[in-house]
Amino acid sequence: MSKVRISSAGLTRFGKRKEGLLDLMCEVSEKVLEGDVEAVYVGCQNPEEFTGEANISTRVATWLGLTPRSAVRIENSSASGSAVFLQAFAAVKAGLFKRALVVAGEKMTHLPTARANAILSEVLSSRERELGMTMVSLGALVARRYMHDHGLTREELALIPVKNHRNGTMNPNAHFQKEITVEKVLSSRLIASPLTLYDVAPISDGAAAVVLEDKGSGPEVVGIGSGTENIGVVDRARYDSLAATIEAARQAFGMARLKPSEVDIAEVHDAFSILELINMEDLGLCKKGKAGDMLKSGDTEINGRLPVNTSGGLKARGHPVGATGLAQVCEIFWQLTGNAGRRQVDGAKIGITQNIGGFGCNNAVTVVRGG
Amino acid sequence: MSKVRISSAGLTRFGKRKEGLLDLMCEVSEKVLEGDVEAVYVGCQNPEEFTGEANISTRVATWLGLTPRSAVRIENSSASGSAVFLQAFAAVKAGLFKRALVVAGEKMTHLPTARANAILSEVLSSRERELGMTMVSLGALVARRYMHDHGLTREELALIPVKNHRNGTMNPNAHFQKEITVEKVLSSRLIASPLTLYDVAPISDGAAAVVLEDKGSGPEVVGIGSGTENIGVVDRARYDSLAATIEAARQAFGMARLKPSEVDIAEVHDAFSILELINMEDLGLCKKGKAGDMLKSGDTEINGRLPVNTSGGLKARGHPVGATGLAQVCEIFWQLTGNAGRRQVDGAKIGITQNIGGFGCNNAVTVVRGG
Repeated sequence: MSKVRISSAGLTRFGKRKEGLLDLMCEVSEKVLEGDVEAVYVGCQNPEEFTGEANISTRVATWLGLTPRSAVRIENSSASGSAVFLQAFAAVKAGLFKRALVVAGEKMTHLPTARANAILSEVLSSRERELGMTMVSLGALVARRYMHDHGLTREELALIPVKNHRNGTMNPNAHFQKEITVEKVLSSRLIASPLTLYDVAPISDGAAAVVLEDKGSGPEVVGIGSGTENIGVVDRARYDSLAATIEAARQAFGMARLKPSEVDIAEVHDAFSILELINMEDLGLCKKGKAGDMLKSGDTEINGRLPVNTSGGLKARGHPVGATGLAQVCEIFWQLTGNAGRRQVDGAKIGITQNIGGFGCNNAVTVVRGG
Repeated sequence: MSKVRISSAGLTRFGKRKEGLLDLMCEVSEKVLEGDVEAVYVGCQNPEEFTGEANISTRVATWLGLTPRSAVRIENSSASGSAVFLQAFAAVKAGLFKRALVVAGEKMTHLPTARANAILSEVLSSRERELGMTMVSLGALVARRYMHDHGLTREELALIPVKNHRNGTMNPNAHFQKEITVEKVLSSRLIASPLTLYDVAPISDGAAAVVLEDKGSGPEVVGIGSGTENIGVVDRARYDSLAATIEAARQAFGMARLKPSEVDIAEVHDAFSILELINMEDLGLCKKGKAGDMLKSGDTEINGRLPVNTSGGLKARGHPVGATGLAQVCEIFWQLTGNAGRRQVDGAKIGITQNIGGFGCNNAVTVVRGG
């Protein structure tokens, strides 16, 4: 079967945007489109409720003037951006399409924060919603468990948003482009103990796009996988690890015939600071409970042994939910092609992305090899 | 590349069901599941607004006990059932999964009809929604245009629901299982002139499922395609044909290396009676404007030359929007394997399905060959 390559990648500026969802998706699609495509793959978590737009794939095809090409929308809650990438990959691999546009986005900031958070929490299990749990309250429980089990301190946890905000200052598309300090994280507004404002990814608007094709010289998608776990967090065997990531990584590394130790650079889903460490461990990038040591030693900095979230991650780049997984792929594309500007990592050959759907229940992993 | 075969198919009873969406999807999945699957593909138009359930793919995987398997949700409005089938086909064809469960459903009847119709009309173009257009009003405009251009009478149009209701009496899963007459169609409540109650598919609950695999002896999916057209109906070159179907058929017949004249049996999207004729013509099953002649001559009856909608179609089987495209595939599976009971067509070898998304703007075609 043919190889599947990424020939171009683009992001809109993430943040509070005045434009609508379709504007953002078209803006970013026009950045990456050159020549014809045979299909449009659209990733979006919930345009029906965020912006009142249903039938989004046809809207995108119409607005881009791509009819009568094939168009489809893929949704896996906050992993919609990686899920749409996976399905487009499969279609190109299967020979259905030689060249496909993949575009993912979300428009959220126009809603009152309480309404946006209510929509976001619809992805939780019915029982946990009935109990009043929200995404961030589950994040706080997981943080407490991890800190207790693995001896991570509150100050160490704060190093994650500090690193990611620093990286964000070098990303012109990032929602936040200013440095923060550990002191600022600790003294910021308490959201759900122990998590404060700077431990939590923001509500953002934005869109990402790539073109996938069966030829060319772009970075090759060598491994891809996705896995699930019980939607109810209380029903899981453990809280300091996500089985869905472990399954997705097993598939992706198996397809790529690579080991986690061969990865040069990673973009992982830090919707809550603690998740960056959990995700690194679930990907096999270090042993269980040891990601904090890598963080403290500087290994995950841009100039470290294994840079993590050079883009700024969800925390600083922003988190327009449906776009995030595809934005991660864009960052890997730029790093592997030497186009990451001031945040460029030297000599990276193998990049990995890890994207979480819901509260860790539907996760995807992609492994990309540079040319 | 490996062939992709349908190894089993199932439907719930369609109609007004007291169970919830997940109940229906699990009921039908359990009918078709035997042994393990590597992925769950879920098709659904709008569970967020119909039932308040987001993250539906993970919910289905959890309820079926299939975690940590891959799960994804595909949405193309009322073509979600065919879109999810297409994406699962691509993934099996690409070798990502050897065996996949495809399940599609919708739960709609619990809402007041006005609310259900409002959700359904969200798939239209913004401009047409603002003008107060609804799905059925567009159906009425298209019917008038077709009748005027091609000399079809009101009585002839009524023959479509009469045929499909007759077929429905032989389908134990159909929403409606009673015969109607031309007189009854003509005297039923006017919905949007010239369409009356019996020209319009009902609001239904229900789910469909199939298992796709890369081996075995089940019917083979030999052709598949999907196409789009401008979401705004007024922006189209003509109203008596759907360009999205023509494009989807071009792809599907091209892949199958078959001609429309080789098709033995068809399931097409008769959401409004007039669409059955338009769809037949767009698929190339007859010349433009001539589908009415086939209907009148009995060619599309179960014992005719080219039976159309032996299941009862959307009109009599029912139209739980996200399920419909996959329910069409189930009917073809049963016909090609000799399991269609009292509505069995003799000797059918090649079956085709045609499913419409939105108002004809995102359509899919599947060609299946019997063993």
